[in-house]
Amino acid sequence: MTQATRLLLNADLGESFGAWQMGADAQVMPLIDCANIATGFHASDPVTMRRTVALAVKHKVQIGAHPAYPDKEGFGRRAMQCSPEEITAMLLFQLGALHAMCLAEGGQLAYVKPHGALYHDMMRNPKVFDAILDALQAWNTDLPLVVLATAEIAALQERAQRRGISLWPEAFADRAYLASGQLVPRDQPGAVLVTKAAILAQVDTLATTGQVVTQDGPRIQVPAVTLCVHGDNDEAVALIADIRARIDLANQARATAQGE
Amino acid sequence: MTQATRLLLNADLGESFGAWQMGADAQVMPLIDCANIATGFHASDPVTMRRTVALAVKHKVQIGAHPAYPDKEGFGRRAMQCSPEEITAMLLFQLGALHAMCLAEGGQLAYVKPHGALYHDMMRNPKVFDAILDALQAWNTDLPLVVLATAEIAALQERAQRRGISLWPEAFADRAYLASGQLVPRDQPGAVLVTKAAILAQVDTLATTGQVVTQDGPRIQVPAVTLCVHGDNDEAVALIADIRARIDLANQARATAQGE
Amino acid sequence: MTQATRLLLNADLGESFGAWQMGADAQVMPLIDCANIATGFHASDPVTMRRTVALAVKHKVQIGAHPAYPDKEGFGRRAMQCSPEEITAMLLFQLGALHAMCLAEGGQLAYVKPHGALYHDMMRNPKVFDAILDALQAWNTDLPLVVLATAEIAALQERAQRRGISLWPEAFADRAYLASGQLVPRDQPGAVLVTKAAILAQVDTLATTGQVVTQDGPRIQVPAVTLCVHGDNDEAVALIADIRARIDLANQARATAQGE
Amino acid sequence: MTQATRLLLNADLGESFGAWQMGADAQVMPLIDCANIATGFHASDPVTMRRTVALAVKHKVQIGAHPAYPDKEGFGRRAMQCSPEEITAMLLFQLGALHAMCLAEGGQLAYVKPHGALYHDMMRNPKVFDAILDALQAWNTDLPLVVLATAEIAALQERAQRRGISLWPEAFADRAYLASGQLVPRDQPGAVLVTKAAILAQVDTLATTGQVVTQDGPRIQVPAVTLCVHGDNDEAVALIADIRARIDLANQARATAQGE
Repeated sequence: MTQATRLLLNADLGESFGAWQMGADAQVMPLIDCANIATGFHASDPVTMRRTVALAVKHKVQIGAHPAYPDKEGFGRRAMQCSPEEITAMLLFQLGALHAMCLAEGGQLAYVKPHGALYHDMMRNPKVFDAILDALQAWNTDLPLVVLATAEIAALQERAQRRGISLWPEAFADRAYLASGQLVPRDQPGAVLVTKAAILAQVDTLATTGQVVTQDGPRIQVPAVTLCVHGDNDEAVALIADIRARIDLANQARATAQGE
Repeated sequence: MTQATRLLLNADLGESFGAWQMGADAQVMPLIDCANIATGFHASDPVTMRRTVALAVKHKVQIGAHPAYPDKEGFGRRAMQCSPEEITAMLLFQLGALHAMCLAEGGQLAYVKPHGALYHDMMRNPKVFDAILDALQAWNTDLPLVVLATAEIAALQERAQRRGISLWPEAFADRAYLASGQLVPRDQPGAVLVTKAAILAQVDTLATTGQVVTQDGPRIQVPAVTLCVHGDNDEAVALIADIRARIDLANQARATAQGE
Repeated sequence: MTQATRLLLNADLGESFGAWQMGADAQVMPLIDCANIATGFHASDPVTMRRTVALAVKHKVQIGAHPAYPDKEGFGRRAMQCSPEEITAMLLFQLGALHAMCLAEGGQLAYVKPHGALYHDMMRNPKVFDAILDALQAWNTDLPLVVLATAEIAALQERAQRRGISLWPEAFADRAYLASGQLVPRDQPGAVLVTKAAILAQVDTLATTGQVVTQDGPRIQVPAVTLCVHGDNDEAVALIADIRARIDLANQARATAQGE
Repeated sequence: MTQATRLLLNADLGESFGAWQMGADAQVMPLIDCANIATGFHASDPVTMRRTVALAVKHKVQIGAHPAYPDKEGFGRRAMQCSPEEITAMLLFQLGALHAMCLAEGGQLAYVKPHGALYHDMMRNPKVFDAILDALQAWNTDLPLVVLATAEIAALQERAQRRGISLWPEAFADRAYLASGQLVPRDQPGAVLVTKAAILAQVDTLATTGQVVTQDGPRIQVPAVTLCVHGDNDEAVALIADIRARIDLANQARATAQGE
């Protein structure tokens, strides 16, 4: 039982755009620890960004920048072949824009989690990963970077550490894992956990032991600092509330155990 | 002779966009004191913003944010009926984005000059002016705001002062003035000075006396802190060099006079 | 009883954008005669446009282009000071884009209804109205233009007729009218009818007599060809169904009366 | 000597955007046969599109749609992972928009040449190629598609023919070829012909014999219908004029020979 830290719940918020509403932000914000706030490239606009930051400040939720490729039409989900220089500059641009809203609302940037295709490219392509680190280094305050908690995390951690940047590996409440430490690819059966029972079981195991039961058998250690949840609709919000309760329970149990 | 301060030369820079080049930035930057740097709404992109900030830092030029309405197709020249909340938030967004480039390049934001239709709306519409002040106040460091130096400047100055914000009134090297202190409207004859001689004469008078000779006769005082010039092409760059020389001369003369 | 024509029900559709959904299109389409389909400037994207056209074709609903100012963030509701040349060209662009979807889906453009701020500017500013007529004339097939049915409609009709363009004046089911023939401005009490009873009463009167009862007293004739309804949510859809029923009833009554 | 057809000169035009100018369109248009006109996704705007179409009509130049990925900031040069449905719909959208300008200016669409990353993806990825064919088929008039004239052209031609769509293979005046029929990749030495002499020699050989001398030795047949040239600046325009002269000469020689 190596898991000692408290799992932080993170969710994507502030993804409305102009007249288009998305996400149950007002209901989700009180339930999470970390809000990944859209920064205007895949979603959001200046007014929405400011309001979302204000909501996070009100609920004392940590504010994460959620930068993306510049593609509202594709919601940042389409890979775009950007140069490292472009990626670094677009990260800085988005961090700065969200930082301004924090200044205005009395909050502060706490971490960075790339969105959608940029997140996937970061995990797959070392040039993209390094371009993102370049931005964090140039920003010159300490912002951790959220990455997928996989078996290969050590290599990324080494690269980041050399720059003085810390990583926050994240696990998923509703994705199945392989013994290799990878997520089951989305096009394979069972990739996404759909029943509430299965999701809560995975959360329990993660929160109490730092492990997941893999699709192909053995338990593996998943070195996650944070757990990603989704708040798209009422049902999803209810599930987050359940996950919140499980995590709080595990945290209390651990605190008690450590107190003895 | 009331003019005591050194006139700062300001020019719009960083107005390229992706593959589209605009402005002779590399030639203009060494000649000016203050660079109004586009912040991605009427022109520019993250890479261009970062490069332009780096160029300003290299030449020790003060960095001004040049925010605009979100309208690249119209180059920010088309008035857009935005709400005060939208204007405040879009200002913050753009300040933040440029601030990030300053962090990355070792520079810092020194002032704000709204662009195009936003500048005109600010001068005409108190709601727009106040919405811009709201952003500067929320930004919470001391950024002066560039405004048109007109006869009515006192009222604006009072509103700004109440918020603790200072104004930088600006004069134009190539625009004719009326005895009322207003610019001659662009659709009237003689609104724009076209000969080099006329422009340099106006610069001389401004730099040495703080006055301009108006189209309808009398000299008037123009309480300018800064002088706006344009660097669109080779000829314009040569003119800026001449204006620079005149201003330096006036400054030296004043320094000598004050030294005695 | 001068109202002889069948009132056409029109509604705005196809206003989703990428991942953002808006409107109950699938439920509304079977209930209306005319679909005002967004053309990518205030809302929609190529895929959404094509799907919305396909849905209209399936339900044999007339396809109207719903062009707007280029402003997704403001949903086309913010007035933009565009030149007549820009307005004409942006209308043509949007008509062409929707026409392509009609070609692909076996439909055809039937009319044009400008959206939001462009619609308001068209009614207020003759230069905007003429720029829109220029586009319809250049398009060179017969597309009627939807305008607000007001007391001043005659002047617009004359201008349009001179170009060989016909107008489709539209009335609103849920807006109160003044004896002058104008809508009660939105910032005045009672501007919007909120009870189902009030709305259906206005529809009944319009459909059977071509008149409305004005806020300040007298009945006036409203020379409408079409009636605008909104399908934003389940309640709105139910209301459209009721309005549809009233109009069908009025049409049958008239047919019977005329048949005798 | 199998080359019997007259080589058509094509060039990219209408790539200005709002206030940003690009290309010497007025000088290039009289020198070419086919104008690839930007359709608003990688470059251009409705006014620029209309003016460019008018210029083409004036010079009796064939009008080609030059559709691209939706990415002005990257000038359509960054690959974007779009679905086939998205590609087909964005092609239709752009064809329609340009068609509207043709209607307004008395021209007509003559062919389609995808731009930048979309062109490259079309040549590399059969799904992209098919998605483009889907759009041309749905457009339902006969528009040929410009593709790179390579050794593998036969396979593409078969796929296109099955849909009743004809291809226009194009050669490049300034790119070196390999014996395999491929272009020398841009990152290899000699990929781009830089001297005027080398370019004109390649044009001569192509225009008179339908062949090119490859970098690695043998002459190969290049089955081109059209030849791509670039008109970015004065020097480039002068080169197009020279290429035009060579091609005219070759055409006359062939006409004379055939006349005997």
